[in-house]
Amino acid sequence: MNTTEPAVSPPGDGGLIRLRLDLAYDGTEFVGWAAQPGQRTVEDTLAIALGTVLRLDPVPRLVVAGRTDAGVHATGQVAHLDVPVASWLAFPGRPGRFPRSKEEELLVRLAGILPADLRVQRVSPAPPGFEARFSALRRRYTYRVCDHPAGVPPLRRHDILWHRRPLEVEAMSQAAGSLVGLHDFAAFCRRRVGATTIRTLLLYHWHRDDQGFLVGTVIADAFCHSMVRALVGVVLPVGDGRRPVDWPVQVLAGAVRHPAVSVAGAHGLVLEEVVYPDDTDLAQRARESRTLRELP
Amino acid sequence: MNTTEPAVSPPGDGGLIRLRLDLAYDGTEFVGWAAQPGQRTVEDTLAIALGTVLRLDPVPRLVVAGRTDAGVHATGQVAHLDVPVASWLAFPGRPGRFPRSKEEELLVRLAGILPADLRVQRVSPAPPGFEARFSALRRRYTYRVCDHPAGVPPLRRHDILWHRRPLEVEAMSQAAGSLVGLHDFAAFCRRRVGATTIRTLLLYHWHRDDQGFLVGTVIADAFCHSMVRALVGVVLPVGDGRRPVDWPVQVLAGAVRHPAVSVAGAHGLVLEEVVYPDDTDLAQRARESRTLRELP
Repeated sequence: MNTTEPAVSPPGDGGLIRLRLDLAYDGTEFVGWAAQPGQRTVEDTLAIALGTVLRLDPVPRLVVAGRTDAGVHATGQVAHLDVPVASWLAFPGRPGRFPRSKEEELLVRLAGILPADLRVQRVSPAPPGFEARFSALRRRYTYRVCDHPAGVPPLRRHDILWHRRPLEVEAMSQAAGSLVGLHDFAAFCRRRVGATTIRTLLLYHWHRDDQGFLVGTVIADAFCHSMVRALVGVVLPVGDGRRPVDWPVQVLAGAVRHPAVSVAGAHGLVLEEVVYPDDTDLAQRARESRTLRELP
Repeated sequence: MNTTEPAVSPPGDGGLIRLRLDLAYDGTEFVGWAAQPGQRTVEDTLAIALGTVLRLDPVPRLVVAGRTDAGVHATGQVAHLDVPVASWLAFPGRPGRFPRSKEEELLVRLAGILPADLRVQRVSPAPPGFEARFSALRRRYTYRVCDHPAGVPPLRRHDILWHRRPLEVEAMSQAAGSLVGLHDFAAFCRRRVGATTIRTLLLYHWHRDDQGFLVGTVIADAFCHSMVRALVGVVLPVGDGRRPVDWPVQVLAGAVRHPAVSVAGAHGLVLEEVVYPDDTDLAQRARESRTLRELP
């Protein structure tokens, strides 16, 4: 959930206005966020719809906070795009009995042409210095598991993993907590040449919600590829008693991919929130993140 | 959501044991509960799986509390079947490190062969006098609507209707309340020869939940065909201001199907609960219901 350069044009530059988009999608039928030729991706689907509604040619370039993998869902994804001021001014609000602002009208028109598994939930002109990826302070993901012997309730089967053995949530949460902090997460990341696997895991815990599902919450400033799903995969065997509570921290210390750690299925994972600093700190944060990520 | 005869064999008779099944399904890919040749129905899918797991030939006959239509979901459906005592005794529980009762083992095996859009959530030997359809005191359905301009959140699109205009929940609930009571609901039912359309609507109200969705709750002893969806269809135009609050009660008084009442889409509707009396009153309740339903 890394990479891509930042948007070329800073807000206001060259007659462009930057729009922030808050997005939700069901990842089941997408091969992930990132555009890939001939594949159904969130990025392509959204860019084409925006191009149509805003009459932009070529289709706009999008920058996203979390580049989710195939099958991963989002309820709180954030992206931005830069639109020529002239196009934005030409786009109409709606007068009359049910009046709508420009932003609301854009939502409604997008809802009319986007497929039902992708929704733009909010559109707003971005504050100065806002950059969807680099201004972000942290990302929050949740992972949901059902350990009921009967399986996952049918209406939730698209976003909850079924684990066939009963799980001890306290053991899972204790194991999860032992991974929090600044570490080299190489044991839980797919290696990429020239990319660091050092991250600060700010929070990782598990609880049972009021419907009896196990909910894992993971917060970090940034994640490397498949990291969250490996962090889930390493605590499930603790939960069902196949591994001791200190196994995940041993795997972490090994600093290499461990063959016994499985990457949990994509469909239990949801990007729920991207947190940004106050408007006055957006540009500074973007400069810092960019510098960090560009270290050799 | 009517018809079919009761189970032929009363519990304990002829060496049969009656099992109560608590069910959930996503109705999207089913043409409804009731078996139909060549169609994918909940009844057929479940009966075949039960026949396989319990080694019953021919496949067992099921009796259900609410015969849901095509596309309608259930989280609290109830059915029963009668199984030869010998087959039930031969069915094993599971010993060992993760022991399971006979009933749990049946759940797990059913989960292994049923499609993911249908789940048996509980199996229990039925108390004497239990009859899934006729012992029921009342059925509770909910209907969910989203009136956000951006549309329905993608992960909820299978069980929430999108209404494009903003809705006034107080007006809807007031209109809904005016329909409660003992009435001839002919205005909201598909006519069937020889069937009464007189029902007691015990409760009908609307509220907004903590996620901003409108939730309609409808409770009655029984419903006639498409009645709940027509009860929803008649209050939506009140909610968006196209009809006055007293329009639904005027339609009711007309006692004939009103062309301006649309039947709301099936996918917003969920059978959430079937309520039965205390065990001591099950047989008496079944006798009463059967008598009522058999009136000319």
